[in-house]
Amino acid sequence: MTETTTTGLSSTARTTLNRKKDRAATDRANLYAVLDEGLVCHLGLVNAGGAPMVIPTGYGRDGDTLYLHGSTGATTMRAGTEGPEVCVTVTLLDAIIYARSVNNHSMNYRSAVIYGRLRQPVDRAEKLHGLRMITDHLAPGSWEHARDVNEKELAAVTVLALDLTEASVKMRSAGVIDDPDDVAAGNAWAGVLPVHTGFGEPRPDPQLPEGIALPEHVSQRRQVRRPDPA
Amino acid sequence: MTETTTTGLSSTARTTLNRKKDRAATDRANLYAVLDEGLVCHLGLVNAGGAPMVIPTGYGRDGDTLYLHGSTGATTMRAGTEGPEVCVTVTLLDAIIYARSVNNHSMNYRSAVIYGRLRQPVDRAEKLHGLRMITDHLAPGSWEHARDVNEKELAAVTVLALDLTEASVKMRSAGVIDDPDDVAAGNAWAGVLPVHTGFGEPRPDPQLPEGIALPEHVSQRRQVRRPDPA
Repeated sequence: MTETTTTGLSSTARTTLNRKKDRAATDRANLYAVLDEGLVCHLGLVNAGGAPMVIPTGYGRDGDTLYLHGSTGATTMRAGTEGPEVCVTVTLLDAIIYARSVNNHSMNYRSAVIYGRLRQPVDRAEKLHGLRMITDHLAPGSWEHARDVNEKELAAVTVLALDLTEASVKMRSAGVIDDPDDVAAGNAWAGVLPVHTGFGEPRPDPQLPEGIALPEHVSQRRQVRRPDPA
Repeated sequence: MTETTTTGLSSTARTTLNRKKDRAATDRANLYAVLDEGLVCHLGLVNAGGAPMVIPTGYGRDGDTLYLHGSTGATTMRAGTEGPEVCVTVTLLDAIIYARSVNNHSMNYRSAVIYGRLRQPVDRAEKLHGLRMITDHLAPGSWEHARDVNEKELAAVTVLALDLTEASVKMRSAGVIDDPDDVAAGNAWAGVLPVHTGFGEPRPDPQLPEGIALPEHVSQRRQVRRPDPA
């Protein structure tokens, strides 16, 4: 049974994971699927003292470019200069695996890990496009519905870009994998508890005037993570 | 209106965040709340080449110690030696904020960031305890219900510990914060879309014999993230 699949999408050592590399490879579509389904990424940087820091932030994707909202203040790079080496990870938790033994408890998940150097778009059009990708990802439909970004706002925002060149996807999507002796003993419950992320009832802003109905791009938004396929 | 709260739980520069530090401080209870509600953490390390890497992993907490499941292969430390500097981040997404302007779109979230050096318990009792904390966090009730870890399994597992000494909590829990001109114009819908993580219907393992009913510690597990309080 295939428990965990690791897909290296480039040939560097760090995206060719050491563990479980005998497991079946999948393709770049898995990378896109994980990135498109997640809502928050974790951006890893090395600070001036050489220590790691991990910051959650919003993002969006267009083809093989990931755009990050850079307002965290974590990066002090200037537009056009080569940015710091980073690692961006997006993780989707799909299920908790209850096994007959404590040791075989596990999680079904899908995670994407991307390595590269941040780039800060110099071009106004790319910056605006990156901001649109981030907005479309966080709140699909809002770019058309809400007031446009003005020049002052655009200037105050930092958009960062990362190429999806060096990346890997790791996933576990199996059921319970127990030791045969434990299965035979049959002393404990075992199964899969799906985990999902969903949206609650939208709450209109109290200052909203009457007559502005809940728009479809909000009302139609439903569960973002697929139920666990296992 | 308080939009974002940043709490530094120690006096180091990196946990005294630069942005929005005028906002109200909260306390260590917030750190515990975020850690206890999350299911996966993101572990940041610096590799031999000086580049960051960010790995999702399970964890558990006991007082001011975080225990991590170290089976990722990312760390090659030996028990008793001083481990690498790490940053562990847990992020809970509570809501998506739809504003009248694209620029004021935001997220409500709570995130905990912990800095420190990993420690690998030397003592068998602490290693077992750490494993229990990780199991209790992932699957409360399973430690009592499932077969105990045997010595061979315990030897094969890596448990890592991290003191919650240097940490910060950042959160946004407000409603829509729009520019007065946009509120007055009233041209777009604005509101809060709560985001939650919940569990689906448990699926028993096909090899389960009849007569092993779904135990309460699984059936009673419900939504793990509070609805957004804003």
